Amino acid sequence: MADTHALDVLIQSLRRLPGVGVKSAQRMAFHLLQHDRDGAQALSRALQAAVGAVQHCERCHTFTEALVCATCLDTRRDHSKLCVVETPADQSALERTGAYHGLYFVLMGKLSPLDGVGPHDIGLKKLFDRALDGTVEEVILATNFTAEGEATAHVIGEALKTRGLRMTRLARGVPAGSELEYVDLGTIAHALVDRR
Amino acid sequence: MADTHALDVLIQSLRRLPGVGVKSAQRMAFHLLQHDRDGAQALSRALQAAVGAVQHCERCHTFTEALVCATCLDTRRDHSKLCVVETPADQSALERTGAYHGLYFVLMGKLSPLDGVGPHDIGLKKLFDRALDGTVEEVILATNFTAEGEATAHVIGEALKTRGLRMTRLARGVPAGSELEYVDLGTIAHALVDRR
Repeated sequence: MADTHALDVLIQSLRRLPGVGVKSAQRMAFHLLQHDRDGAQALSRALQAAVGAVQHCERCHTFTEALVCATCLDTRRDHSKLCVVETPADQSALERTGAYHGLYFVLMGKLSPLDGVGPHDIGLKKLFDRALDGTVEEVILATNFTAEGEATAHVIGEALKTRGLRMTRLARGVPAGSELEYVDLGTIAHALVDRR
Repeated sequence: MADTHALDVLIQSLRRLPGVGVKSAQRMAFHLLQHDRDGAQALSRALQAAVGAVQHCERCHTFTEALVCATCLDTRRDHSKLCVVETPADQSALERTGAYHGLYFVLMGKLSPLDGVGPHDIGLKKLFDRALDGTVEEVILATNFTAEGEATAHVIGEALKTRGLRMTRLARGVPAGSELEYVDLGTIAHALVDRR
């Protein structure tokens, strides 16, 4: 688009964002340069600041600007429970429920052999050290109910269940507010098996 | 997501991109920080560079890093033809056809009263000065065939048609390679009227 190198570089850089193809990148670059140059500069500064400041919590591996995140340092939380999630967004969803007061371990991914993501990439060694440090009594596997999330939960469960820890998994069942007629059969079958 | 201010600011900044909601912004921030910090820094630099370098061509209003863009300066092009398009992406699409060798005027938008975009916002005064500078003989209206693009073409056509310029509009018709059965009726009607 036009004869400007800086614009081409911007479009190429925007394409590195997940889910952004060449048309979207063009539209984004056009919008920023034509209508929101303040936004472009704010985004530039925010990227720089985040890359400089955001690192991983030493204990739970989530994003934080400190050595250990505020959640891990919170003494009012139940340190005997460790909930394993895939991403900070999943952690945030659990936090918003207000129903969990233990600690977390954030894998920052999931096992995915087809994409070349193995145990080392999601810090399983670090998780096992953390789970076996003596304070943890229960490990709650809260990875997603996708094929990869299930496989990840299975691998973690197999590795830890012989070590005297209570291993649990989020319940599968019918979502709150939904009508049976519209729920898929696999979910209903799981809800039947896990009935209480 | 987690307790990091820099990350929240990054997510908010990404939401200023068109078509990016809070979930996409979270996914983008997560991806950049977890898997592509080089990409984040490249994007930060590209934004800064583009905001600093990219301005509007004095003659055709498209994005350029010079005072006047290379297209406008190209003496091999037909300076008697001026093609009016909405965006640099539209200009680029016309260029890729290889079928047009005149010059352009890029509106950088379209008339859209509902969004508060009036004649001043798309530089119509500048377009009229340019069209009437003595070198232009034909103005080709290549705004999009949307309600707003048509209205924009209509306004420009009405303003210039009494000034001795030849005013033309891109032909509407059946797209190349398509089967009549699957073309919408409005398009077929236009193709019939514009038959040659």
